[in-house]
Parts: sequence; C-alpha cells; structure tokens
Amino acid sequence: MTLEARASSDDRKALREANEAFYKALEGLDLPSMERLWLHSGWVQCVHPGWEALVGWTAVQQSFVQIFASTRWIRVTPTGVHVEVMGDVGVVSCAENITHKSDDDIGLAVAHATNLFRRTPEGWRMIHHHASPAPVRVTHPFTGTVQ
Amino acid sequence: MTLEARASSDDRKALREANEAFYKALEGLDLPSMERLWLHSGWVQCVHPGWEALVGWTAVQQSFVQIFASTRWIRVTPTGVHVEVMGDVGVVSCAENITHKSDDDIGLAVAHATNLFRRTPEGWRMIHHHASPAPVRVTHPFTGTVQ
Repeated sequence: MTLEARASSDDRKALREANEAFYKALEGLDLPSMERLWLHSGWVQCVHPGWEALVGWTAVQQSFVQIFASTRWIRVTPTGVHVEVMGDVGVVSCAENITHKSDDDIGLAVAHATNLFRRTPEGWRMIHHHASPAPVRVTHPFTGTVQ
Repeated sequence: MTLEARASSDDRKALREANEAFYKALEGLDLPSMERLWLHSGWVQCVHPGWEALVGWTAVQQSFVQIFASTRWIRVTPTGVHVEVMGDVGVVSCAENITHKSDDDIGLAVAHATNLFRRTPEGWRMIHHHASPAPVRVTHPFTGTVQ
C-alpha cells in the first residue's frame, strides 16, 4: 500500500513556510498577518493550551486579539516539524518551545501542535490549530545552591 | 469562495462511524480493533493527554498496549463532534468526556481531540490522534456539607 503523501517539494516547502508564518505572526503579535493566514470560515477550529475549543473564524480571531493584548512578548521555536501534504490538505505537527512575558510574569512552556492547512488559490490557509501542554524537560534545574 | 468540504452524506457517515469505532475500541480495551482502525505507517502520529508525541505505528501501537494494560475500565462519551471530509482526508474534532479506573483510582476528565483519518480502499483509517486536557465543568461540586 503506498498511501503515503505524494507531493512536490515546492508544495511541501510552501506548507512549511505557511507553518512558519503562523509562528512569525504569533511572535510579532501581528493580527493582520494572522488574519491573512487563516481561512475565514465558520468551521475552522482552534484550541489554545488549556482553552475550550473555538469554532468559526470570528471566535478564533477574537482569541488572537485577546492573546495579543495580554502578551508583552512571546518567542516560539518550533521543533520536530512534520509536514504531510494529502491532496488539498496540509498536516503539520510540531513542538512549540515557548518563552513569553504576560503581564509581569516570564514563563517557559512546551506545547504540542497539530496545524491543518487547506490549499487555496492564494496559497495554504490555516483551518485548524490544536496546541496542548507537553512535558517540559528542564536541562539545568536550579538546585538551590549558590556556587 | 466555496472551499467548504463537499462530501456525500454516506462519506461523512462512514467518517463519523470510524470516529465512533475509535472510542468503542478504547472503551473495549480492544487492541485488535484499534490495530484495524489505524493506518500502519511510519508517519502516523498520536498525542495522548500529557504525553510526548508518538510518531509511527509501532510507537502508537505500543502506547495502546500500555494504556490498555494499566486501565481497569474506561468510558468515553464524545460530544460536540465536528466532521469534515476534504478529498481523501477526514478531519474530526470532539470533546472526550472520560470516566476511567486505573489501578485503584477512579477519575473524571475532559479532553479535546483532533482525529484525522485517511481514505483507503478498506475505508477510513486513523492517521493522527491528538488529545489534550480540556477545562472541566463540575456541575455539582461537593460543598463539604453532608445534608
């Protein structure tokens, strides 16, 4: 059985770039770019870590307005990025390695993301974002000893 | 723009049934049914709530062996099920309302799930399962008062 996705390297490259554009818009707290990236449809979905699922572009857009308003800055480094093109659907999964400042707190977090894109005449458009808390490996835990 | 999924009602019905078969296999701790439901490919992915992402059928299968071995019983009621057929890809999202007994603990949980299926000559086969903790609304919180 050869059901594995067959796609041109250009196709996969464009999908990878769409995924990078998502994290660039997130880091830039850049609402216009985020709006351009998403398909404005009633059935798109978004699950932010720990949130209820949001259904429909209006709810998704409002969530980014809210997140951008409460975030001073955020850096997200995607790692372990897997990209699959299946017809007009692009499936991307990755780990999101996050450092962010919200109000006065600086936080570290890792999330798993499933990002789905739909092929359109204007390029890949996001239709689904599901991010959830992942185990965090702290490489240099503080021991409580000042050396 | 009419990019919304066009699919026959039979197509969507079969996808919905594949999603139900997943939860039936989970409730039944039924490894053979779970094995039949998944595409046995090196790129399928599975994220159980709080786990690292598993890549490839071998790792996914082992996770179900492990979960089934440590679970006495589990009941999962999917709600808010959204089904979209896009070409040969089926996208399902739902809330998983879970009651389970693991070792000696009985637990309640709610998870969000993104379930992806691939159309094959044998029917829809699961290629991606991403489940993550969701907010729990406790309808009758215990007040500490015995009446």
